[in-house]
Amino acid sequence: MVVTDPDILAGYRHDRALDPHAGMPAALIRPLTTEQVATVVAWAHERRVPLVPRGAGTGLSGGATAQDGALLLSTERMRAITVDPVTRTAVTQPGLLNAEVKRAAAEHGLWYPPDPSSFEICSIGGNAATNAGGLCCVKYGVTTDYILGMEVVLADGTVARLGGPRLKDSAGLSLTKLFVGSEGTLGIITELTLRLLPAQPQQSTVVATFSTLTSATAAIEAVTARLRPSMLEFMDAVAINAVEDEMRMGLDRGAAAMLVARSDAPGEYRTQEAAIIAAACESAGATEVFSTEDPDEGEAFCAARRFAIPAVERKGPLLLEDVGVPLPRLGDLVTGIAEIAERRAVLISVIAHAGDGNTHPLIVHNPADPDETARAHQAFGEIMDLAIALGGTITGEHGVGRLKKAWLPDQVGPEVMELTRRIKDALDPHGILNPGAVL
Amino acid sequence: MVVTDPDILAGYRHDRALDPHAGMPAALIRPLTTEQVATVVAWAHERRVPLVPRGAGTGLSGGATAQDGALLLSTERMRAITVDPVTRTAVTQPGLLNAEVKRAAAEHGLWYPPDPSSFEICSIGGNAATNAGGLCCVKYGVTTDYILGMEVVLADGTVARLGGPRLKDSAGLSLTKLFVGSEGTLGIITELTLRLLPAQPQQSTVVATFSTLTSATAAIEAVTARLRPSMLEFMDAVAINAVEDEMRMGLDRGAAAMLVARSDAPGEYRTQEAAIIAAACESAGATEVFSTEDPDEGEAFCAARRFAIPAVERKGPLLLEDVGVPLPRLGDLVTGIAEIAERRAVLISVIAHAGDGNTHPLIVHNPADPDETARAHQAFGEIMDLAIALGGTITGEHGVGRLKKAWLPDQVGPEVMELTRRIKDALDPHGILNPGAVL
Repeated sequence: MVVTDPDILAGYRHDRALDPHAGMPAALIRPLTTEQVATVVAWAHERRVPLVPRGAGTGLSGGATAQDGALLLSTERMRAITVDPVTRTAVTQPGLLNAEVKRAAAEHGLWYPPDPSSFEICSIGGNAATNAGGLCCVKYGVTTDYILGMEVVLADGTVARLGGPRLKDSAGLSLTKLFVGSEGTLGIITELTLRLLPAQPQQSTVVATFSTLTSATAAIEAVTARLRPSMLEFMDAVAINAVEDEMRMGLDRGAAAMLVARSDAPGEYRTQEAAIIAAACESAGATEVFSTEDPDEGEAFCAARRFAIPAVERKGPLLLEDVGVPLPRLGDLVTGIAEIAERRAVLISVIAHAGDGNTHPLIVHNPADPDETARAHQAFGEIMDLAIALGGTITGEHGVGRLKKAWLPDQVGPEVMELTRRIKDALDPHGILNPGAVL
Repeated sequence: MVVTDPDILAGYRHDRALDPHAGMPAALIRPLTTEQVATVVAWAHERRVPLVPRGAGTGLSGGATAQDGALLLSTERMRAITVDPVTRTAVTQPGLLNAEVKRAAAEHGLWYPPDPSSFEICSIGGNAATNAGGLCCVKYGVTTDYILGMEVVLADGTVARLGGPRLKDSAGLSLTKLFVGSEGTLGIITELTLRLLPAQPQQSTVVATFSTLTSATAAIEAVTARLRPSMLEFMDAVAINAVEDEMRMGLDRGAAAMLVARSDAPGEYRTQEAAIIAAACESAGATEVFSTEDPDEGEAFCAARRFAIPAVERKGPLLLEDVGVPLPRLGDLVTGIAEIAERRAVLISVIAHAGDGNTHPLIVHNPADPDETARAHQAFGEIMDLAIALGGTITGEHGVGRLKKAWLPDQVGPEVMELTRRIKDALDPHGILNPGAVL
């Protein structure tokens, strides 16, 4: 369970944020049971040893970056799951991957909706710790909407059970919801009770291209004003071309933006919804609109969208942003990002969960070029400043971690920081849980 | 703004729990603005004066019961609302009634789903404070699922803004969610940002009657295993007969139970869903199944269900319960309640938001008969004990208030009580906010 081999430890120092300031942990612990987690946390609490929890290490904000002398507590071996088709719930340990939860649910004809792009490699515990989102959220909500209960090990090693397999429960404070998205700063999630839905119906897919960013963002508003698509994704010209370079799908290389939208309305109504989406895109000025009922063809376009990040990454390492704004400000955000890219002379590609107003600007830079790297980091901060100025958030679904914490006070204000600090101090008085993250 | 007239104060001492132990408040405050709320709370904080917040006073758990010497802070005059159809959000003050929020949304073709049976008389602030539910929750979730942000006055008078009109936001702790359902113990909600949906499609209605409770609960599981109805309500024989006494609708007086289910699936698929629901009831052993596409006829059956509480109340004052269990235990709960009724020799009628496993046992008693009243209160406690033993909750949607707090530790355990106490102490160190409620 305890690993101190420096070669193995080295592989656990970073998550996908690849923070160059990651420390050297004292040891890695890979427990199998809640009792083992409780023992480790109680030990760390008594000795005031910092403890950094991690799931699959796919976080993009440095929430699992190792700290000098800390224990790394990886939940990767906690992989049990049971699905109850009658209550439509699953009870799972945190180390299971999101895709594995989906598969376990599917064996019973059920569906766990949240679908981060990383769903094949990210853990369900990490999803809960960051309140992860995904592509389906525009219709189906985010991780917190699917967590009915959890078991959590508190800072002193106490095991607490929050909520449970009840669809409605107003008994006491909403502690389950407080721990979702707490990024390992309040406790270690050792079990989750998830709400499942009946299997998703078949989807229709609409792909629209636009010659201007303005017409694309107008189409997004026009679609969401009329209905709730099951997906509504945006790619800019850079992303379209990067994907086309790799996949040769015949995407319109001259387009300024492309939307991929889907409907999973039941029965015949799906075709009607797809037609409404197509018409909304056309009246917003789409240059081309293509609709398909064919699941494979639809899946190919979604795969193209999911592939946008690795495709753009071929141009160079990315700083991956996650800012969100209220939907009417999406146009301002996208335009403002283009201005930042020009001012800082860096390539920034924007893809977005457009229906949620949640964007992922991808800042390309060459780490061997210190000047470009500096400009990329300037742009990274300026994009967050812009999102805050537009009434938005510095993180829609990745979490604050260590990478974004300098911007959190600007977004939420001193009163909320003080409130957060009070709750943190009340629950983790010695500050051993994921120190340096969020706060 | 400040009222000390004892005649007026008398009208504010109770909520609908009609707690005989309600105290005599020092004054009633009816502020119009957040600034006024902040001034009052800061004053109370400085002088350690207890403060009991209330919305429309329709709470059923005594969360707004007056305390001796306390200030009553009523939000009834804080009634501004603005609806933004583009972001599909509403920003509302807490004093507006749920029905008024629904109407303001409907003016823009939008829908605020949560629908407590009291929706015409309960306030949206009270809904948020208790995480209220309703009939649509089986498909559409509860109040917390529709609150994107809030403004809250903390115990020392500080005004904090939590969340905002962003569909996804992972920045910092989920404080918005923590304050939903906190029953006025952590702060006073002075503004809410609500998520709205497109108008609900037309509904089909299925009514099924059963000769045994077992067949009715089997039908509930059979329906929810297949699809998500937009409503799935249960009435027992006492409720059916009480409603029929008043409304003369031709309900089956010989039935042991009746289900009212609806589908709001879009387009033609609605009829298919209604057929699936009807077939599930039939194979579970329904004695009669009636389906209608006619909105007025469907509405009449929903009105019958909503009227069940006042109809049973004609037999005598009620102790209104709110226990919930995981769905497979619903049969055990209903059977167990019948045994309690027999043992305590009191009339208990059970109605339920069946699809959620959330029941409202209605305990009829004559307050002039002290022996019967004592037995009614014994039954009230025993029903909560039963729900806890079945892995359920003492309150699905009404909150703990003062009436149920003695049972809260039995449900959640000492670890969660300690966690709750720590958060309460961190946020309200002098315990001025709604003292005696929940904790």
